[in-house]
Amino acid sequence: MRIDDRATLADLACGAAFLGSGGGGDPYYSLLLAEAAFARSGGFDLIAASDLDDDALVAPCGWIGAPTVSVEKLPNGRETVTALRRLEQLTGRKIAAVMPVEIGGGNGLAPFIAAAELGVPVVDADGMGRAFPESQMVTFNMRGLSACPSVLTAACGSLAVIETQDNLTHERVARGLSVALGGIAHMVEYPLTGAQAKRDAIQGSVTSAIAIGAAIRHARAARRDPFTALADALKATGLYPHCQTLFDGKIVDLERETKGGFSIGKVIIDGFGDGGRMEVLFQNENLVARQDGKVRAMVPDLITIMDRETADTITTERLKYGQRVKVIAAAAPAMLREPAALAVVGPAAFGLGHDFTPIERLNQGEGA
Amino acid sequence: MRIDDRATLADLACGAAFLGSGGGGDPYYSLLLAEAAFARSGGFDLIAASDLDDDALVAPCGWIGAPTVSVEKLPNGRETVTALRRLEQLTGRKIAAVMPVEIGGGNGLAPFIAAAELGVPVVDADGMGRAFPESQMVTFNMRGLSACPSVLTAACGSLAVIETQDNLTHERVARGLSVALGGIAHMVEYPLTGAQAKRDAIQGSVTSAIAIGAAIRHARAARRDPFTALADALKATGLYPHCQTLFDGKIVDLERETKGGFSIGKVIIDGFGDGGRMEVLFQNENLVARQDGKVRAMVPDLITIMDRETADTITTERLKYGQRVKVIAAAAPAMLREPAALAVVGPAAFGLGHDFTPIERLNQGEGA
Repeated sequence: MRIDDRATLADLACGAAFLGSGGGGDPYYSLLLAEAAFARSGGFDLIAASDLDDDALVAPCGWIGAPTVSVEKLPNGRETVTALRRLEQLTGRKIAAVMPVEIGGGNGLAPFIAAAELGVPVVDADGMGRAFPESQMVTFNMRGLSACPSVLTAACGSLAVIETQDNLTHERVARGLSVALGGIAHMVEYPLTGAQAKRDAIQGSVTSAIAIGAAIRHARAARRDPFTALADALKATGLYPHCQTLFDGKIVDLERETKGGFSIGKVIIDGFGDGGRMEVLFQNENLVARQDGKVRAMVPDLITIMDRETADTITTERLKYGQRVKVIAAAAPAMLREPAALAVVGPAAFGLGHDFTPIERLNQGEGA
Repeated sequence: MRIDDRATLADLACGAAFLGSGGGGDPYYSLLLAEAAFARSGGFDLIAASDLDDDALVAPCGWIGAPTVSVEKLPNGRETVTALRRLEQLTGRKIAAVMPVEIGGGNGLAPFIAAAELGVPVVDADGMGRAFPESQMVTFNMRGLSACPSVLTAACGSLAVIETQDNLTHERVARGLSVALGGIAHMVEYPLTGAQAKRDAIQGSVTSAIAIGAAIRHARAARRDPFTALADALKATGLYPHCQTLFDGKIVDLERETKGGFSIGKVIIDGFGDGGRMEVLFQNENLVARQDGKVRAMVPDLITIMDRETADTITTERLKYGQRVKVIAAAAPAMLREPAALAVVGPAAFGLGHDFTPIERLNQGEGA
């Protein structure tokens, strides 16, 4: 697929924002950078992983850090390309294609900028099917692949090559680096073969994001309900087969701090009428939504807070008192609900003290 | 010079401990590792920088982190060699010699272990002439050389290559990494040419440390006062031309915390009889000694707290309530008192709010 119009890029940004589950970085700056790359290059090539040679070198990339920092500290624009070139030096090979390490948020667009400059395609797949706060929360780790060598670059021109014995230590090291470098950095990690990209990535997530964004855009233009369009589009992707509007209300309280390289906090939403109260906890991404003490959705299922009129996604760093919002949950891709995956991205991995229950069972009988 | 007996190694550990000014890492474990390397290799070659080819590759190495951690978290013993081999890969060249990045504390012995394994000599020079808490506080930085590429290794087997645009950012990145890796890591940094080692390092500091240790050992054996022997030995080195016993008393209070990758605190010493009270502030190393409000010594001059009977150096992480101690100050090597050096390692660089005044002026008329 050739992306050769700005509307498709904007659809991708809109869909990726939803899939970010509140995180993945604000898509606004990524969209600006992608549009600039688009203006220079005239377009981007998106290919299916199945089109890759089995021994091709595929480079997943994205930003690591607190989204609260990313909206204030701008990139220098060269981070991704510098890191990819270094990966080529380290491996002695040419990169055949790039891939978002996570489709969610700004990270869904991040590889397009580098792809245009390197003249390589973007693979229609990613390692999370959404966004997660920690770098080991990726299908490649669940499938036993190594994050290393990874290359971390920052706006100040710093670069670090990281090699660790395990992926959790890699996350600790990369996180410490991102904090030392001002709270946000770019990372190329989990260098894949084409065969691994076919087997261990979540397929079709980039085109899914585009379809979600397009559905919302078309609904707005036709003055149809964008939330209905969103639910239909999610189901049509096949990746996100269930969708629920969990709550409709006004933000009445917000706690948020930037701590340990993350944006951590809690938002309280009061329902309209006698709708009760919903609490959503987040660590970069929304992790669990509880209504009057009852869990309505939890990781790895997606929980996204959206403007109740426009269906614009409100990422965790953009939450504010008084916003009128809907809380939307979507079923995570099947690969994230496998037992090996739940050990890495299930509620227990976040210390939440719940066993994972899918949204379609938690909210049985309540339609989209 | 060939170091072919264990007594000389012990002298080096003793002298380096004094020159550490309270820091540089506990020399005990470094001595054990050096003795093991000695047992395997039969000895170490120590050469003058002037013996190096101008284009030789010289690798300064040492440990970065909080000394409080280093006494509890042991190295795996391969950190230095792994990092040096990686530096050879990165530069495509063989390392001709290694050098302590700082002569003070355990770091004065660190390169000997790797030297034995690589079959290269140690250069009789270092980058600090003592120990300092931060990696940019080194003569190589004062003379405009770059710390990069540096290689950081940790006991868990992790490795990171760091490249930054400036040496202060390098320190921030390396410090963040050392914290993420458990509080202590090994670093090979400021790769030098032979010409730079001749011009920009402090010459003769390794043999000075050996001479200081030997003087204390001989004094103890002959039941002479070790502090007199220390003062004479310091003057004889030519590097440390002045020495003062600032204070003699008992530790009555101690504040110490491990924060931001450093061991930070303050020790209070009450004088015997009507000797007043001395306060010594430290950040890994002792930074300033004040007696009843009057500054008696400050960085970059050396301030070392020693057991008042044995003249054993008590590093900042070994300070305890009740210890009977002498506080000894020594003039820093001339290279550290130049204006460009004072900007990096003078009291203002530590936020101390004093202009640098040498100990020989602060304590005029008070003999050693």
